[in-house]
Amino acid sequence: MVFDSVLKTIAEKNLIETGDKIVVAVSGGPDSVCLLHILHRLSNQMDISLFVAHLNHQIRGLEAHLDSLYVMKLCDSLNIPCFIKSIDVPKYCEDNKVGLEDGARMQRYKMFNEIKAKVGANKVAIGHNKNDQVETVLMRIMRGTGLQGLRGIEYKRNDGIIRPILDLNRKDIEKYCVEHELYPRIDKTNLESIYSRNKIRLELIPYIQKEFNENFIDSAIRMVQNLRSDSDYILNEVDKEYSELARAYEDGVYLFVEKFNTLHNAIKSRLVIRGIRDLVGDVNGIEKKHIDEVLEMSKDDKLNKKINLPRGIFVYRKQGYILLSKSILEDSNIEYEYTIEPGKDVFISELGKTFKSEIVSLENFNSDELKKGLQFLDLGKIKSSIRLRNRRQGDKIRLSGGTKKIKELFIGLKIPRENRDKVPILVDGDSVVAVCDYRMSIDYKIEEKTEKVLMFTLE
Amino acid sequence: MVFDSVLKTIAEKNLIETGDKIVVAVSGGPDSVCLLHILHRLSNQMDISLFVAHLNHQIRGLEAHLDSLYVMKLCDSLNIPCFIKSIDVPKYCEDNKVGLEDGARMQRYKMFNEIKAKVGANKVAIGHNKNDQVETVLMRIMRGTGLQGLRGIEYKRNDGIIRPILDLNRKDIEKYCVEHELYPRIDKTNLESIYSRNKIRLELIPYIQKEFNENFIDSAIRMVQNLRSDSDYILNEVDKEYSELARAYEDGVYLFVEKFNTLHNAIKSRLVIRGIRDLVGDVNGIEKKHIDEVLEMSKDDKLNKKINLPRGIFVYRKQGYILLSKSILEDSNIEYEYTIEPGKDVFISELGKTFKSEIVSLENFNSDELKKGLQFLDLGKIKSSIRLRNRRQGDKIRLSGGTKKIKELFIGLKIPRENRDKVPILVDGDSVVAVCDYRMSIDYKIEEKTEKVLMFTLE
Repeated sequence: MVFDSVLKTIAEKNLIETGDKIVVAVSGGPDSVCLLHILHRLSNQMDISLFVAHLNHQIRGLEAHLDSLYVMKLCDSLNIPCFIKSIDVPKYCEDNKVGLEDGARMQRYKMFNEIKAKVGANKVAIGHNKNDQVETVLMRIMRGTGLQGLRGIEYKRNDGIIRPILDLNRKDIEKYCVEHELYPRIDKTNLESIYSRNKIRLELIPYIQKEFNENFIDSAIRMVQNLRSDSDYILNEVDKEYSELARAYEDGVYLFVEKFNTLHNAIKSRLVIRGIRDLVGDVNGIEKKHIDEVLEMSKDDKLNKKINLPRGIFVYRKQGYILLSKSILEDSNIEYEYTIEPGKDVFISELGKTFKSEIVSLENFNSDELKKGLQFLDLGKIKSSIRLRNRRQGDKIRLSGGTKKIKELFIGLKIPRENRDKVPILVDGDSVVAVCDYRMSIDYKIEEKTEKVLMFTLE
Repeated sequence: MVFDSVLKTIAEKNLIETGDKIVVAVSGGPDSVCLLHILHRLSNQMDISLFVAHLNHQIRGLEAHLDSLYVMKLCDSLNIPCFIKSIDVPKYCEDNKVGLEDGARMQRYKMFNEIKAKVGANKVAIGHNKNDQVETVLMRIMRGTGLQGLRGIEYKRNDGIIRPILDLNRKDIEKYCVEHELYPRIDKTNLESIYSRNKIRLELIPYIQKEFNENFIDSAIRMVQNLRSDSDYILNEVDKEYSELARAYEDGVYLFVEKFNTLHNAIKSRLVIRGIRDLVGDVNGIEKKHIDEVLEMSKDDKLNKKINLPRGIFVYRKQGYILLSKSILEDSNIEYEYTIEPGKDVFISELGKTFKSEIVSLENFNSDELKKGLQFLDLGKIKSSIRLRNRRQGDKIRLSGGTKKIKELFIGLKIPRENRDKVPILVDGDSVVAVCDYRMSIDYKIEEKTEKVLMFTLE
């Protein structure tokens, strides 16, 4: 029954595939011994290879040594390669000023990865069970968490960690060990109510079971399963929206506000978190209030505002987007200049727009069919290289009515002073080819002898 | 500061509007007295009318009486109309077999509504605070809940209940009462760790604060706020989808599967819940397994299948939709068959009933004590495996009067023709063991030499 239940978990969560090489973390306690025994039975049915990893943490002197001996003997009887590493964890924790529990965990995971690399394994199986799951979730609830934290321990992580016995409870595991005469070691530290997790296990959960709900473990697991489903749904939606409205460029992560502002706060705040993670790798040091500040920036009255977040993150609100960046943007006097390769898209981050161009032959060019906002020029008339930049002192353009200063053109077009520095100008060397969206120079006009036409637009 | 904080809550959550007539629930304890005092100050700024409702619950004799006197005096000094109702809550609870806590709450809300109707009020203000919020959420976590339950107490309900001091903590409230010399009554029952809520307040939360997180209340409130936002988002999406793919007609609620099947389980299960609520008013008696069964029905291979849920709900899978209905559709040929593992419950979805069985030794079996509807057989006489199914062509049963065709038995028992295909029949291989609720075969009768008895029933 226990075996079948684990097979079900493995199948449903897609934990193990044929050909997997799995490092099994074995402490010698009932959970990991049960896990190993089940995977060993499975290895007779499926083509998988097992390797055992055991850490002698030296926390309990002789006892820890006996644990190691037990694991060696067990592996011997099952004919599974066994790797044992001995580390003075108490010393390591003292030296690095971390708690025993955290230190032991860090060293354990470090060892798993070493052995995984050494034997060329692709997965690491860990013996967490249902009770561990509930303990973890309770711990998070008490320390403060959100929907993602309430998912609890994952069956499967991207880094190859799998937890095949997460649906078993401690009693079933102990029964399994008795039935299969495995005689696991009992971790004495577990019985001491020193560490927070042991306090939860030995004091809090029994108290809840006695006073409030004797089926608490199952109730809590049901809650976790439901919340996991809800969390999956939300993360799914966040993925969709992020790929639609966020872009990571060299200067940072752009969140385009038009779509962003139509979304629910639950999604918006997660999009910001995703953006920050894309920018600096994680969200350590970023608190809810920081996320809320970024959400505030999406409002229209925050245009051209800038805030600083921890981790050296600058947040800029520009026309059409929020930019999460690690660099300081010139605030006044925006200056930009991009080299344009005809036919290729260039994203103009200062504008949050993409300069798109296409080369067509004159035969295929029909100006009547062109959509609004599209401009075009005779590519043969370009003497130097094409660049897109904002205005420079003294820029002029040749129009049919004569040469005009760009500044005067802007005044004539009633472009607000604060926007004038942004208007993109297409130049050929120093000559102005076009004031994008407004005017074309007559020097680059299409004629009958034109061969190639460059059509361009800003989107 | 306390006053401003409450004003902020009122504004942000849109709790009170000009012209509101508000019944304020006042027990005489610090929470409700603080609430009343703040609303009274507000009534000087805003055009709102206040009425006080107080229940003398008679739980603590003289003390309860003194509470009532205190509330009367307080209302007098603030010049607010005061309604006091005296109910023997302990007696009511005994008569109606409900717990004191539940009974007092039911009576309180009943009174609020009476007074609300009497004075023509549109709202009822209740003095729940931050600590109550955390206690409620902890209680739900321990008893089992989902995302909606983790929202905790609502600031505002559709029925006019508002909770303006939900953002205050108990200490601030007590300080406010001291500063304004209100001398609230201290509810002695609060100090007794009898009721679950008091256990949470007086034992569990102090334990968590001491052992795990001294800022637990604030951490928990942050969690609730985040989960509330997530829950809002999901319910919002459910609303949208429901209005798109569900239709309530006279014969029931239709869920159109084409769109339904593209959605995430988190949304689908809530759509089913919404459908059931639209059909029968609430979801009492409906469990997760029932919802999961309806979700199963959305699959294409379930076409033309039918299941029964509790509350007299029939679920039909038709081409293009699932129909949740209270009426029986003319259906042809229901066929079902379940393998029975003695001692295990099996839910028979076609009947909406659970087949329950229990194995007892003959010594422990006393047929006189058996409740109605229970049948029993000699487990040792089972030759093959036990299954539960509806009738098949040619089924016969050996009764004391001789072998009888099941069809004839049904006619004799006056079972209506349209029900005959559903009557569950317990079989051992091909031999009929029992026609459930009606007849047992003499071949499986209990005798002196019987060792194990299987008792079974359909519930």
